[in-house]
Amino acid sequence: MKLKLLREREILTAIRKEFSDMPRDLILGIGDDAAVIKTREKYLILTKDLLIEDYHFIVSFHPPYFLGRKSLNVNLSDVAAMGGKPRYALLGLAFPEKTPTRWVEEFFAGFKSAAEEWKVTLAGGDISQSKKIAVSVTVLGEGKTIIRRDGAKPGHLLFVSGNLGDSQQGLILLRKKFKPEDDELADPLLKAFLDPTPQVSLGQGLSRLKMPSAMIDISDGLSVDLMNLCQESGCGAEIEEASLPLSFELCYWQRKPYELALHGGEDYQLLFSVPLEKLDFMAQLQKKYKITCIGKMTKEKGIFLIDKDGKKKPLEIKGFEHFT
Amino acid sequence: MKLKLLREREILTAIRKEFSDMPRDLILGIGDDAAVIKTREKYLILTKDLLIEDYHFIVSFHPPYFLGRKSLNVNLSDVAAMGGKPRYALLGLAFPEKTPTRWVEEFFAGFKSAAEEWKVTLAGGDISQSKKIAVSVTVLGEGKTIIRRDGAKPGHLLFVSGNLGDSQQGLILLRKKFKPEDDELADPLLKAFLDPTPQVSLGQGLSRLKMPSAMIDISDGLSVDLMNLCQESGCGAEIEEASLPLSFELCYWQRKPYELALHGGEDYQLLFSVPLEKLDFMAQLQKKYKITCIGKMTKEKGIFLIDKDGKKKPLEIKGFEHFT
Repeated sequence: MKLKLLREREILTAIRKEFSDMPRDLILGIGDDAAVIKTREKYLILTKDLLIEDYHFIVSFHPPYFLGRKSLNVNLSDVAAMGGKPRYALLGLAFPEKTPTRWVEEFFAGFKSAAEEWKVTLAGGDISQSKKIAVSVTVLGEGKTIIRRDGAKPGHLLFVSGNLGDSQQGLILLRKKFKPEDDELADPLLKAFLDPTPQVSLGQGLSRLKMPSAMIDISDGLSVDLMNLCQESGCGAEIEEASLPLSFELCYWQRKPYELALHGGEDYQLLFSVPLEKLDFMAQLQKKYKITCIGKMTKEKGIFLIDKDGKKKPLEIKGFEHFT
Repeated sequence: MKLKLLREREILTAIRKEFSDMPRDLILGIGDDAAVIKTREKYLILTKDLLIEDYHFIVSFHPPYFLGRKSLNVNLSDVAAMGGKPRYALLGLAFPEKTPTRWVEEFFAGFKSAAEEWKVTLAGGDISQSKKIAVSVTVLGEGKTIIRRDGAKPGHLLFVSGNLGDSQQGLILLRKKFKPEDDELADPLLKAFLDPTPQVSLGQGLSRLKMPSAMIDISDGLSVDLMNLCQESGCGAEIEEASLPLSFELCYWQRKPYELALHGGEDYQLLFSVPLEKLDFMAQLQKKYKITCIGKMTKEKGIFLIDKDGKKKPLEIKGFEHFT
């Protein structure tokens, strides 16, 4: 979750430097989707997200049931991006005194439904008061192997799961006062924003097959998250605009669907690189999941877009400012 | 952290019921200081706290360095109350755009100093924007044994570490515009509130000696946390007012020090029960730590106070509303 990208990056760099002396059993620290700790038997994966009213969600847009689901699912997406299996969640919820009890109940019912769906146990948490709703979720996952952000090499192919840009278009429709069930062509887009599905089983499948050399979930938008993957891996990338997976519904509502696919954010799809020699397994996964090759990693640093006319140009790196 | 005790309790009860089906490797779920997960080698302890500006802290009172320390230390206190060793922390920080970079830097410097003090590694986290500052910290700890809240039995003696009520008096002085270093008699009290020390080494010492039958940290005030311990253990308690450990400084500023010791909150001292046959070890610990016997567990449910005149009366269960 980012809003002021540059300032966040600047602060994160400072923090990372300050806290750089990590003990040996901490495999990944600040900067990946999650922290990873090696135990004798397996890797533990620890992730957290803080969602603040009016910055990460708007109460009037977001039915509490979906918000409960999303607050867990965005964390599961981080675990998925490590190829891990989510196990336990902690939930911190702060809300104003005037919040209807029904709102709180529906929030928890949503949280529970997502927890059951992914077999995650709510292991604890705390409730407190605040002026604006704040949701803080921590997830502990595990994995026999983990997939980092920093293993991509020049020549590896780049893939994404699902479609891109739907979530952002869903938000645009919500701003135009669309509500769930108003229009069947709007519904999949509203769902992508209000109730995104974390790619937990695909992440585990990829991890089992040891296919990806690097993986990240797309929360800040393809361009930003691809940049993160490239920076961590120390290489560049080239993507083909025409390959970006777009839903029919996105194209129906939006004159500039590629803009949203490239920079939209909150897709919670997986972006991963695969060495050529591991592509054999792809067919097996593609029977079950929508997976699209969108480009490749390059030795040349910098990220380039090959547009529909075959023209190569630097890809602008930007995310959408959602609510501010 | 509680503010509206009754409503929180009501909601927690509902949540607990809803999420009661726990897998076998989860030893403690919602309701204890932390979640505990059993692995082959040891117990993992997971705790989190969400601190919201104007509800859990006031920016004008709280120098950012101390707030950084406190936001980690209140979580370490929860790990201490399980007898565990804190290992890793995740930090989520949301703040308004106008927050001075210096404030953020000092907050992190404080967080780091507490992390170094207790050999805790900052393993990850996220930064985002908000209208009011929100701090969300998760700590992962471990222990060979753990001490729960629910093991106290009638006849076990009740102990507290340190002094009680200092933190609340510190807040009262802050409200009267005292600042650190204004008055040497105010400083220990201001410190108790602004920069409390988690009882991590005492907690581990108690756990190593397997002394306490139940333990909790005093965050909501002695009366509230004692009630929690009694409810979980299914017995009552009797405490002696005259035994409550008071600091000289608290008595200097406060005409009703017992009121603060009983109900003040944010002491982050340990409250624990010990079976008589384990008291042999107490002398050993008392060389290093201030530990005071304040009463005993009883078969009769209900919590009673024996006042300075030897009169027994039901103890009022209440916490202070700090900022609202």
